Amino acid sequence: PDEHAARAARARQDSLTKPPGSLGTLEDLAVFMAGWQGVERPRIEQAQALVFAGNHGVCARGVNPFPQEVTAQMVANFNAGGAAINQLCRVAGAELSVVALDLDRPTRDFTAGPAMDEAECLQAMRAGWEAVDLGADVLILGEMGIGNSTVAAALCAALFGGEASDWVGAGTGSDAEGRALKARVVAEGLALHGHLPPLGILAALGGREQAAIAGAVLAARIARVPVILDGFICTASAAPLHAADPAFLSHCLVGHRSAEAGHRRLLEALGKEPVLDFAMRLGEGTGAALALGVLRAALACHDGMATFADAGVSGG
Amino acid sequence: PDEHAARAARARQDSLTKPPGSLGTLEDLAVFMAGWQGVERPRIEQAQALVFAGNHGVCARGVNPFPQEVTAQMVANFNAGGAAINQLCRVAGAELSVVALDLDRPTRDFTAGPAMDEAECLQAMRAGWEAVDLGADVLILGEMGIGNSTVAAALCAALFGGEASDWVGAGTGSDAEGRALKARVVAEGLALHGHLPPLGILAALGGREQAAIAGAVLAARIARVPVILDGFICTASAAPLHAADPAFLSHCLVGHRSAEAGHRRLLEALGKEPVLDFAMRLGEGTGAALALGVLRAALACHDGMATFADAGVSGG
Repeated sequence: PDEHAARAARARQDSLTKPPGSLGTLEDLAVFMAGWQGVERPRIEQAQALVFAGNHGVCARGVNPFPQEVTAQMVANFNAGGAAINQLCRVAGAELSVVALDLDRPTRDFTAGPAMDEAECLQAMRAGWEAVDLGADVLILGEMGIGNSTVAAALCAALFGGEASDWVGAGTGSDAEGRALKARVVAEGLALHGHLPPLGILAALGGREQAAIAGAVLAARIARVPVILDGFICTASAAPLHAADPAFLSHCLVGHRSAEAGHRRLLEALGKEPVLDFAMRLGEGTGAALALGVLRAALACHDGMATFADAGVSGG
Repeated sequence: PDEHAARAARARQDSLTKPPGSLGTLEDLAVFMAGWQGVERPRIEQAQALVFAGNHGVCARGVNPFPQEVTAQMVANFNAGGAAINQLCRVAGAELSVVALDLDRPTRDFTAGPAMDEAECLQAMRAGWEAVDLGADVLILGEMGIGNSTVAAALCAALFGGEASDWVGAGTGSDAEGRALKARVVAEGLALHGHLPPLGILAALGGREQAAIAGAVLAARIARVPVILDGFICTASAAPLHAADPAFLSHCLVGHRSAEAGHRRLLEALGKEPVLDFAMRLGEGTGAALALGVLRAALACHDGMATFADAGVSGG
């Protein structure tokens, strides 16, 4: 980030008609955006939202109560405007694109071998990379893929350690028995692939939408487009980059803390404080889209407020 | 609230294309609004924001580092559009009105006698009551008044017990010495007025903007207009009503948890969970206006999402 612009933004915050620091998180968000946009007064004119969808061979193990067809059905719902993310992008003023990645060709079951080989993983990363509008002022990322909370748990356990059960949660609605099955499946995947380096883990345990998110995060990092990650699965998709070098995620906010149990642990591992905490666990980028509304509010204060000098208010 | 409408809204939430409960707080907010508007699909077409301003005799005790003229200067800033609340109302789509209550005639110093007599308190409550647009779909409340974090601490200590120091915080920027002075001043006020019934406490320890907020909350309660309270001072202004009967505040959300120390304790006393927690401590209604954005997002999902049946998604 541009430290000069960030310092100028902090100085501006301290000159505005309020006690210094009294806008809390809103001040930090404005300074963050200033650093990444490289200007004292950052703007959001163009907000891009990208939702990547994929299917997962590990569903053969029965880790999700929903059939895999739901992934394509939900993509159709996104395209028809009927999902939560459509409403939240409209409210937050983000332009939504949905990228379905070979839904009729799921990855392989990672308990039997690598989910993707390197070429497949790089192809999905490239799809994510190429979907990014490098002229956007901010990028929101989300995902859809039946079975991918198991995939996210496997990625986290492989990258950050701990027991498989530490990272497994209810997902779309698994009961205690379902969660126990997910933990066993994740443990089997760890035994096969847990020794790999970060991008090897992404290929062997991840899915196409995870790789696409990682590719989009990289593209945005290079173009200095600030990113808002969503919940557990989206954040886990970017985590292999963090394991490779934490600086790959320095342009990323996390929109919310998911109710999915592993997210709290993952955020601690990444050292990221989420913007919101609404006990949501839907994915699709919904928590990130909500956080965009907060970001817009933060920039509106930063840009539109009078200074003590301008307003003739004493004691500034 | 209309329990029939609330139940219909909850049933609608469970039919929408997402795992039941996965929108967390957003679902609860939609159901809350349905109950108070008495319809399955609540709407926000007209959002009113009211900021009340007053001056306080207790400033003679030096409880605030800013001069009392700042109250009028900030009212001028509100009217010129330069304050944080102006920007946040614009972003959230709320129509802002500022009501300055006899700024050149501060209340009396509550350490020497009652801040207001009953007639003065009722007059200010009536000003609050009359400012409410009874046709609004939601009402946001905020305040401005140099010295009023001391007033809020006195109200809370008198209503809910505990030591004066439990309720005193930094306000606009008091240091440790300033906070110790505030605690001594609050303790003196408690010794004089702490034995009074709730509305007696509002008159003796409160200020005009506190009484106006209480009056506005009452008017909204009777007209079934849902309210979003702001931070510590705004919530404390409504607290005498809660002490009289908790049902007086059943139509009130609290927009955020302020960084002002007493707010956490006050929210626990009221049994209210705030919508947001951004370490803000500005007042003016800023936290409430931010929460309005979340409320709009919640209703957009509630109203705009497809059902499982409509979208042809399996497993609903």
